[in-house]
Amino acid sequence: MAVNVLVVLAKGFEELEAISVIDVLRRADCNVIVAKVEANVEEKLEFKNDILDSNLIVESQKGVKVVADKFLNAVDCKSLDGIVFPGGWEGTQNLIASSILKEVLEKLNAKGKIIAAICAAPLALFKHGILKEQSFTCYPSIEKMIENPHYKADSNVIQEGNVITSRGPATALEFAFYLASVFVGKQKTKEIQAEMLAL
Amino acid sequence: MAVNVLVVLAKGFEELEAISVIDVLRRADCNVIVAKVEANVEEKLEFKNDILDSNLIVESQKGVKVVADKFLNAVDCKSLDGIVFPGGWEGTQNLIASSILKEVLEKLNAKGKIIAAICAAPLALFKHGILKEQSFTCYPSIEKMIENPHYKADSNVIQEGNVITSRGPATALEFAFYLASVFVGKQKTKEIQAEMLAL
Repeated sequence: MAVNVLVVLAKGFEELEAISVIDVLRRADCNVIVAKVEANVEEKLEFKNDILDSNLIVESQKGVKVVADKFLNAVDCKSLDGIVFPGGWEGTQNLIASSILKEVLEKLNAKGKIIAAICAAPLALFKHGILKEQSFTCYPSIEKMIENPHYKADSNVIQEGNVITSRGPATALEFAFYLASVFVGKQKTKEIQAEMLAL
Repeated sequence: MAVNVLVVLAKGFEELEAISVIDVLRRADCNVIVAKVEANVEEKLEFKNDILDSNLIVESQKGVKVVADKFLNAVDCKSLDGIVFPGGWEGTQNLIASSILKEVLEKLNAKGKIIAAICAAPLALFKHGILKEQSFTCYPSIEKMIENPHYKADSNVIQEGNVITSRGPATALEFAFYLASVFVGKQKTKEIQAEMLAL
């Protein structure tokens, strides 16, 4: 059974954080679904299976245009094993503004599925009602906006329960390898680290 | 004066290597042009300035679809300060197959502009007539296909003259920071490294 992981992209996402996770998890043979999140606009859009819809393009913080696989409302959330939020300040604001995303998170959290965020994006988890009590990390200064006393500045990646957080662009690859170890195990992750010259 | 850097993407490019360079160099305020390279097909395509042309989409090794800014034949090569080749085996083969790219490289090399490649892509430099004599590095085993005795296995990034090479996905961020230091200097690069939590 393939592991299904949703990576959510909203305008202004941090590109290195998103691509590190997508690259590593696809090397780990996870089924990574890249979904576009817009502040409730996606509710109005019809999903077209075979036609490139230019509305599926999401522009990153530094202007990289990525074509998402789907709109968020076209994703079959029941099959998901986890969800990953890349950071970027504007991207995080756009993740916060999506009520559809809030619903998806609540469903995944209720089932104990993996919920992961890096950089500014742990703030989106908090705003959507996750990350109230768990130990976490994030981009320095973002923790001041998160009303949770369990911020840890000294780890690049932290997991408590089903919530995994990380710090920023330079820790993105470590975050991606950590996620791979959770989804496919340490042995396969080591093989991917070796293939990517990380060992 | 902005520094103009061309990043060339061909089908099958290694996404983390491409995005690391684009992200870091744009943070360094370089004008990064992302150009699509196809094996001579681009000669036939008309460049449309304002309209999204779905032909501009380039699919990475692990299926990330990136919309390039331009086709290679629409790039003003006279203004370029450097060119960067991300790796990926299939991407490298497609870079090798482009005669337009060969011409661009020859012009840049004649002017001593920066020519950089990572992972499998140093092979494309060699096949296009660059990297005959300089010290270099690349993804392990690729050096066997490059008829140049000056392969170095012990450095993540090597520069000799105007040619800069690096090893693979896990060294991509170091490669990107090295390029930034060449294009905008060490001080600004340190600021970006700090901002990205790499220091």
